[in-house]
Amino acid sequence: MVRVAIIGATGYTGLESIEIISRHPQAQVTYLTALPEECGHAEAIFGRLKGKCDMQIEPLDLNKLAKLADVALCCLPHKVSMGFVPKLLDAGVKVIDFSADYRIKDAKLYEKFYSVEHTDTANLEKAAYGLPELFRDEIKGKDLIANPGCYPTGFTLATAPLLKHDLIETDSIINNAVTGASGAGKNPSERFHFPNMNENFFAYGIGTHRHMPEMEQIASTVAGTSVNVLFQPHVGPFDRGILSTVYCQPKRDVTNDKLTKIYEEFYEAESFVQLCTESPSVKDVAGTNYCHVYVTHTKGKIIAFSAIDNLVKGASGQAVQNMNIIFGLDETLGLG
Amino acid sequence: MVRVAIIGATGYTGLESIEIISRHPQAQVTYLTALPEECGHAEAIFGRLKGKCDMQIEPLDLNKLAKLADVALCCLPHKVSMGFVPKLLDAGVKVIDFSADYRIKDAKLYEKFYSVEHTDTANLEKAAYGLPELFRDEIKGKDLIANPGCYPTGFTLATAPLLKHDLIETDSIINNAVTGASGAGKNPSERFHFPNMNENFFAYGIGTHRHMPEMEQIASTVAGTSVNVLFQPHVGPFDRGILSTVYCQPKRDVTNDKLTKIYEEFYEAESFVQLCTESPSVKDVAGTNYCHVYVTHTKGKIIAFSAIDNLVKGASGQAVQNMNIIFGLDETLGLG
Amino acid sequence: MVRVAIIGATGYTGLESIEIISRHPQAQVTYLTALPEECGHAEAIFGRLKGKCDMQIEPLDLNKLAKLADVALCCLPHKVSMGFVPKLLDAGVKVIDFSADYRIKDAKLYEKFYSVEHTDTANLEKAAYGLPELFRDEIKGKDLIANPGCYPTGFTLATAPLLKHDLIETDSIINNAVTGASGAGKNPSERFHFPNMNENFFAYGIGTHRHMPEMEQIASTVAGTSVNVLFQPHVGPFDRGILSTVYCQPKRDVTNDKLTKIYEEFYEAESFVQLCTESPSVKDVAGTNYCHVYVTHTKGKIIAFSAIDNLVKGASGQAVQNMNIIFGLDETLGLG
Amino acid sequence: MVRVAIIGATGYTGLESIEIISRHPQAQVTYLTALPEECGHAEAIFGRLKGKCDMQIEPLDLNKLAKLADVALCCLPHKVSMGFVPKLLDAGVKVIDFSADYRIKDAKLYEKFYSVEHTDTANLEKAAYGLPELFRDEIKGKDLIANPGCYPTGFTLATAPLLKHDLIETDSIINNAVTGASGAGKNPSERFHFPNMNENFFAYGIGTHRHMPEMEQIASTVAGTSVNVLFQPHVGPFDRGILSTVYCQPKRDVTNDKLTKIYEEFYEAESFVQLCTESPSVKDVAGTNYCHVYVTHTKGKIIAFSAIDNLVKGASGQAVQNMNIIFGLDETLGLG
Repeated sequence: MVRVAIIGATGYTGLESIEIISRHPQAQVTYLTALPEECGHAEAIFGRLKGKCDMQIEPLDLNKLAKLADVALCCLPHKVSMGFVPKLLDAGVKVIDFSADYRIKDAKLYEKFYSVEHTDTANLEKAAYGLPELFRDEIKGKDLIANPGCYPTGFTLATAPLLKHDLIETDSIINNAVTGASGAGKNPSERFHFPNMNENFFAYGIGTHRHMPEMEQIASTVAGTSVNVLFQPHVGPFDRGILSTVYCQPKRDVTNDKLTKIYEEFYEAESFVQLCTESPSVKDVAGTNYCHVYVTHTKGKIIAFSAIDNLVKGASGQAVQNMNIIFGLDETLGLG
Repeated sequence: MVRVAIIGATGYTGLESIEIISRHPQAQVTYLTALPEECGHAEAIFGRLKGKCDMQIEPLDLNKLAKLADVALCCLPHKVSMGFVPKLLDAGVKVIDFSADYRIKDAKLYEKFYSVEHTDTANLEKAAYGLPELFRDEIKGKDLIANPGCYPTGFTLATAPLLKHDLIETDSIINNAVTGASGAGKNPSERFHFPNMNENFFAYGIGTHRHMPEMEQIASTVAGTSVNVLFQPHVGPFDRGILSTVYCQPKRDVTNDKLTKIYEEFYEAESFVQLCTESPSVKDVAGTNYCHVYVTHTKGKIIAFSAIDNLVKGASGQAVQNMNIIFGLDETLGLG
Repeated sequence: MVRVAIIGATGYTGLESIEIISRHPQAQVTYLTALPEECGHAEAIFGRLKGKCDMQIEPLDLNKLAKLADVALCCLPHKVSMGFVPKLLDAGVKVIDFSADYRIKDAKLYEKFYSVEHTDTANLEKAAYGLPELFRDEIKGKDLIANPGCYPTGFTLATAPLLKHDLIETDSIINNAVTGASGAGKNPSERFHFPNMNENFFAYGIGTHRHMPEMEQIASTVAGTSVNVLFQPHVGPFDRGILSTVYCQPKRDVTNDKLTKIYEEFYEAESFVQLCTESPSVKDVAGTNYCHVYVTHTKGKIIAFSAIDNLVKGASGQAVQNMNIIFGLDETLGLG
Repeated sequence: MVRVAIIGATGYTGLESIEIISRHPQAQVTYLTALPEECGHAEAIFGRLKGKCDMQIEPLDLNKLAKLADVALCCLPHKVSMGFVPKLLDAGVKVIDFSADYRIKDAKLYEKFYSVEHTDTANLEKAAYGLPELFRDEIKGKDLIANPGCYPTGFTLATAPLLKHDLIETDSIINNAVTGASGAGKNPSERFHFPNMNENFFAYGIGTHRHMPEMEQIASTVAGTSVNVLFQPHVGPFDRGILSTVYCQPKRDVTNDKLTKIYEEFYEAESFVQLCTESPSVKDVAGTNYCHVYVTHTKGKIIAFSAIDNLVKGASGQAVQNMNIIFGLDETLGLG
């Protein structure tokens, strides 16, 4: 039994992690922490947990953590996380970090997009980027996993076969993506107030979204050359899911049959990536760890589509997938 | 041209009022006010007004009001309103007040439910309750109209014919109602945060909702005897509309044909009340000043249904209907 | 490993059953059937099953069923089911039937509400009503379980403690309920066309809903006396969940503390029934087998609220709960 | 008073047209027609019209049309429309046609995308393309207006200033658009069944959408050179609105200030096109004839955004705008 601590358990990814682990046959939640002012009984904080999680969410105590847990899912926000992760590692637990703090290998780039000095570059170097379909070997045996961002997960799974096979121009990729409103997190705001968000649809983060450098870094790693991504996110009036529609300029002629074959081979061994024969639908992957992908060629462009659940494959589910890997378990356990 | 000031123009009923008046052939918005910290250009505050309302929303100046307006739609919250209404009246404008402050004739009852002393009982006495279908004659010629609550509007229009004809027991009425989320107003909150409210449905205000005494007062007036209403509101994941499902104990046998005939006669001359042959749907009245009503008899009870738009017939539309009356205009102007 | 056949696998309860069983540690789906014209590969019919269910949905072959399965979840519609259930039983499998055909013990009453002769009264007598929280002992060891209707499940769990303790008048119960739109099933219709159902809310089945006699039968069994229920269903613009708001006339004075205590004791041993301290929310139970209950006393009435997921506790989850019982497994397996 | 006939009044654009004309101060609906099997009283067919439209929807009678109407809004589907339009014109009324039949000037191109021979090329030549912001002068005095498609309206208003000023490469425009579900029309289907469409988001019409040649034709006219558009539509879970996100390759360096200035000048005199300072929101234009536009420059591309209501500016509202023009009325009448 893997003993799991959840650090920052009162947000949406904390709740999702608790729910996933509670169905996991070889893991259990043993310790829940949050900021002192947000602590309380888990079932009082989340109505969904009534009858399922008779535990207090407590302020973090590193000694308790060391005694109670083998791994910490660290659901803290960007910038905050890097203040805690070194302590969690020192307490002797493995860490899967949900923030962006250990994803961008280039600390300068991180600092540019997150407007803060990186205070834990030592661990930054050691962290593996936790996208198992592409970096499984680097994840194995690691103590610190940088769990990918939701948008970069959808983007990378949509385009990796194209990049790997050198099929597209790397300076003209456009990732037009749409997320459900849970991506905004738990704190109420004007934009996500129901009477504003319902029946609404809009773009945001134009030219500035922080997932852009993450996408470019991973895409460049996959392609083996520098990749430029124009990333334009939108929000729609639904809870869960990201649909990525990625427009690429092919380097050379390629048929749809050839594209399909490349994707089939690329993802043949992957449980969680499934190929579609038309546009994926976010509802088909909502609440699951699956990524549905479709690729086609039209009007001189290749369009690659992917759908994931931003809270599962885009956060807590992928974290559990990473946990399964670093503890030598079947990668799909608890994620059926 | 009736010149209209909107006091408290930055909330949902303010916006709705601006939009309705801007389509009104014989009225125009001439003055918009709000708390100093909420002021600004109307088109910057509400994206919906772009190109339609080139006006500043300013802090209230009573001299300006006196010069610019014939009537004030006072969209201030409960308790705040009674601090302003006497001043608005003194400035020489007629007032249609959206708050509960002038609705409950019994100041003691008001004070019990709103936990505050009533500071303007003089005007409380003079105010007419602005439900034109029932109190048109009292509205005419008044300077101060208490615009009804949204739930009481739906409830009263559903049941008035029954009460007027002494068809039901007055001690056992149950009003089970559902509102869309715009009823919660513009301020973000945990409950109405999209990821909580979407795909959700729940009851609230159990035994304590402040619209209960208002319903009972109006129902008692209509019935000519004391009426007791158990009011249970719920919220559903949609923007606009209230469906009221009212369960009544008949005093004597009555057929569905007889019930239908009574309702037809009662509302024959009313433009905005329409009878249905099955349950009304909130979507059919959304964005309109109409109230759809259906009544039937089943399993020993009479069930009366009504549907209104909480922001229109339940607030701004009804206010304009009242405005039309007190200025001697066709009651339906601007409300088509 | 319990081997599970799903008869009528192409509808929403079929899909839900497949998804639940696929997470069940001691059961597996071994046979899927449907009408010939609806057959095909499970993953092609349901995008959600991609990568999870590499099986054909085939026309029913009773010999295959006998060889492949220990139990059949029979997801056929009312009236159709009783034509198949005797054959399924003859094939030697246990049957959990989702239709109403084996729920109403009084065949005459069934025939009145379903307008068809009951053709399998022999098995009707032998079937247990599969609401484990109330009839667990009768379920054990049975070969045929009549899985309860979604509305009756919500209603019965909300009111059973009141009926059992003889606290309420049995001739004046009003069950005002709201379901999500998945309750309408998979076939497109005008009413449930997105542009009609979205942003809408209405009542239906006024005085005629077929779940009314089922509620009355079970309530009468629980109360030990004839119970009369006025049931009024509504539909709201969300996928999953039923909120039941049940108004009851108390027989005698009872405090909220006393009510709470009675409910706590009644459901103390029940994993899937959880008491709330305010109105339950359908979102808290969506996707789960839980029922959240709240009871209170106001204005001379007792109001009992319950929330369930209509497709889980109201259908497929409860079926798996029944399956666990008749196979001697932990009742909560696969339903975490 | 302009007397308006609506041909094909039982669909969503028919209803929308009736509602708009009923608020129009100088026009009135005088004749409503539909296929014989869809006829009936307007208020029985559309609950929204109760109390507003005491008229029968009748099978088309050309003599009646000639007597009763000055203009016909022809809301028939593609291919059907060109069978009726010549007769409507012969009856002496002006025609505003909602179908694609008179939009594509190249009959061969029409035939390729619509898979049917064009049977009215004579009138095709005479029709004006009814996008007033670009073709106002050609619309004036015409008897037949081809009302633009919803997507082409959004696309063209987003990009016209760029095309007119020769600012972008004309062979690499990508129009990524999202529509609300009302775009699918009134007939129920699996895809738009509420339990499928709700909480869903997907792409469709990949490489094949019929609005693509319309966009290219209009864009080419505006640019004065052949324009190539990759158009990728999506559907989201909301009723109304289209957000277009258009990615363009600039021909030369251009600043955001310059872009903004160009758009401001281009749309200075246009009531219904409003510039935003961030992404437009579909909710801000829902139910209105407005188009909100935003343009910016990022990562080497120009992105132009527009939001319209697909049923208003994308259909019935634009038709009324065209009607106002051809009858010499103030263009904004009835569209406030």
